Amino acid sequence: MHTDINAADLAALLPLTAADAVELLNPMDAAAAASILERLPFAQAVGILEQPELTDASAIVSALPEDLAGRLLEAIPDDRAADVLGALEPDVGARLIRRIGAASRSSIEALLAYAPGTAGSIMTTEYVAVPSTFTVGATLEHVRRVERTRETIYAIYLLAPGSGRLVQVVTLRRLIMGDPLAPVLSLAASTAPVTVGPLVSREDAARLIRRHDLLALPVVDAAQHILGIVTVDDVIDALIAEQTEDVHKFGGLAALERPYMQISFLGMIRKRAGWLCALFLSEMLTASAMQTFSDELSRAVVLTLFIPLIMSSGGNSGSQATSLLIRSLALNEIRLRDWWRVAARELPTGVVLGAILGVIGIVRISAWQELGLFDYGPHWVLIAATVGASLVGIVTFGSLAGSMLPFALKALRFDPASASAPFVATLVDVTGLVIYFSIALIFLRGTLL
Amino acid sequence: MHTDINAADLAALLPLTAADAVELLNPMDAAAAASILERLPFAQAVGILEQPELTDASAIVSALPEDLAGRLLEAIPDDRAADVLGALEPDVGARLIRRIGAASRSSIEALLAYAPGTAGSIMTTEYVAVPSTFTVGATLEHVRRVERTRETIYAIYLLAPGSGRLVQVVTLRRLIMGDPLAPVLSLAASTAPVTVGPLVSREDAARLIRRHDLLALPVVDAAQHILGIVTVDDVIDALIAEQTEDVHKFGGLAALERPYMQISFLGMIRKRAGWLCALFLSEMLTASAMQTFSDELSRAVVLTLFIPLIMSSGGNSGSQATSLLIRSLALNEIRLRDWWRVAARELPTGVVLGAILGVIGIVRISAWQELGLFDYGPHWVLIAATVGASLVGIVTFGSLAGSMLPFALKALRFDPASASAPFVATLVDVTGLVIYFSIALIFLRGTLL
Repeated sequence: MHTDINAADLAALLPLTAADAVELLNPMDAAAAASILERLPFAQAVGILEQPELTDASAIVSALPEDLAGRLLEAIPDDRAADVLGALEPDVGARLIRRIGAASRSSIEALLAYAPGTAGSIMTTEYVAVPSTFTVGATLEHVRRVERTRETIYAIYLLAPGSGRLVQVVTLRRLIMGDPLAPVLSLAASTAPVTVGPLVSREDAARLIRRHDLLALPVVDAAQHILGIVTVDDVIDALIAEQTEDVHKFGGLAALERPYMQISFLGMIRKRAGWLCALFLSEMLTASAMQTFSDELSRAVVLTLFIPLIMSSGGNSGSQATSLLIRSLALNEIRLRDWWRVAARELPTGVVLGAILGVIGIVRISAWQELGLFDYGPHWVLIAATVGASLVGIVTFGSLAGSMLPFALKALRFDPASASAPFVATLVDVTGLVIYFSIALIFLRGTLL
Repeated sequence: MHTDINAADLAALLPLTAADAVELLNPMDAAAAASILERLPFAQAVGILEQPELTDASAIVSALPEDLAGRLLEAIPDDRAADVLGALEPDVGARLIRRIGAASRSSIEALLAYAPGTAGSIMTTEYVAVPSTFTVGATLEHVRRVERTRETIYAIYLLAPGSGRLVQVVTLRRLIMGDPLAPVLSLAASTAPVTVGPLVSREDAARLIRRHDLLALPVVDAAQHILGIVTVDDVIDALIAEQTEDVHKFGGLAALERPYMQISFLGMIRKRAGWLCALFLSEMLTASAMQTFSDELSRAVVLTLFIPLIMSSGGNSGSQATSLLIRSLALNEIRLRDWWRVAARELPTGVVLGAILGVIGIVRISAWQELGLFDYGPHWVLIAATVGASLVGIVTFGSLAGSMLPFALKALRFDPASASAPFVATLVDVTGLVIYFSIALIFLRGTLL
């Protein structure tokens, strides 16, 4: 949507907070948003570009005059600048990065080198560090001096003089409580600081921050030199991005990185067609299974009436079990080696759930028959028994398969959250048909079959 | 699992951080954990009980001597104490709360009154506030004095003298930068502070904290008096709980509040059987639909071979669309009034996806026929055309129904995330069968039917 830019738009933006301005700019096209950003006071433009919620930041930056784009990228935090630059066409990104001052540039280039989804890719290099030999007063003095250029000052890192290795962390909270003449190390915790490597996943970094109630988590190399820090803000953004990814995956499609309305028609088809075709091809096995039983089918057409009902029950119980285990594994409530405990619980759970559905199914068939709503033929009792027994078998298999799938994915070093509801349903459908027809052969041989 | 308590257990716990100690205590039964907590130094016991990750905190507290339980509950933050007390049997909770000093007790009682899932229920009443007439120096002095008893001191609330209403917020960061003699109000932002009411959902509070990059969000009454604050820690916990809830709901079961392994067998059946039965009863409509077409079925048994394949494709495309829209609505990328834009995108998307699957289906049937792998009869070309056309219709219907369901739920004031993959599949299955048989009647009338 193109919005005409006039003085009224600009005047409307001036008194807004950055978050509100972002909401106004997001629906505009990049050129219009860029032209507004260009005419706003520099500090406000920085505040807006900083927001991760500005969805089209890269397109907006490339629509700006290069000189202004460079100055804006230099002014926003390095981790955000790396995100914006990383989403640009490589040649545009390379041109813009040369406009950024050497200090910021090298830190942005380091950030760009880390793979997306790692702690390294979401960390910021704008943290506060002092030699561990400083006094409390000198540390506070340093914090005050560098405050403007740091993303957070609530955690201050104490480095060994000489080697520059991370020794301890002091919170601003403890710092302002301390005696200015005391050594800053005296305020530090007695336990070693919690750190991560740059290649650890952002989810694991989020988990550590949450577990230890940190405001920032230092990212260190093998020699304990600080490469950057991951802040709570970054973690909240990472958690929300992960949640979207998990729901999309569970729904059975490649995760989308951009809002629904901003994905092109072809892009949308591409994201969805892949999994849909893969599932379709696997589900073709149901047609093959049915073909194997086609003789039985033509002799007992009545059996086909319950195929959708029985298959979907298997898929549904599988989808329940998968969603339970995906979260338990993600939250580390359950470890890989606990798979047999889970299997030992799912087996009786599946039998009971299947028996409940089986009884409902038998009641339904008997009721329709006795009330004269439909005639299932002279052997309707055997058909009802077949449906009931199949439901027990299929729901049990669904619960077991659905609960074991996330473990199998984890064992194969995939994300357990890659297990999708459609994938489980497909897995259960083919086996479900085989279970149904096998039970029918046992119960109905000599009568219908 | 019962673990014997001996000196070795205790010795192992003493040097651990609270988070690590929690991991050791979680697998023990409540009585064993209580007996260990009882013998740890008081400060360490407080640190452990504070952790929201301690899963059985309520049971442990009720296994402790009442006097110690009361002292521990008084020492931990009020919001955590309210959580622990809220999960106790009402009579045990009422007895323990009388052991807590009057100041903490009244604040805990106020917290217990808010419904679970609201900002009021996760807020803490331990924040720092000063009259807005204070100087920077006097404010810092006050912060230093109360630091030990406050959950966070990184945001300081400035209240109007007399009325006590919230006027402004100052961060500790700005405070330490200020001139001690300047009025504290001079350091505050120019925009009004971001606040929420106590009955706002925790998800909305989380969204505001994220949107404005806050470290704490004040919860106020209608007259702008502060009732408490929601901190980033609380928000991260709320986000993770919400994520689990969403995945469970999408998987088609009532959300579980406790870890998988801690739910009793009967509890697990209850959580899963409800939805499974509801879906089963709805899915029975497929049997009714099939019964309506039973004459056609017995004349053309070959049609049944493709029922599972066609139905599952509708369910899969619906599940994809639902997962996309659940997240777009949750992130406010799309509003309720945008439903027609989404429908206008899903319609052509569904047609193209259906056409892709349709072509694959036609190729599959032709290949099996031509290669002599299976004989679909003299009218196999018409059958292939029926399958192909049905896939277009069903995938289109699945995409449309799946994408509109979250909107419908939102319009009816339900959580759009209540739309589950099994629910969508069931919705699409019945219609899918009707579409398939109707197309078959058109294509095959006069030949097979």
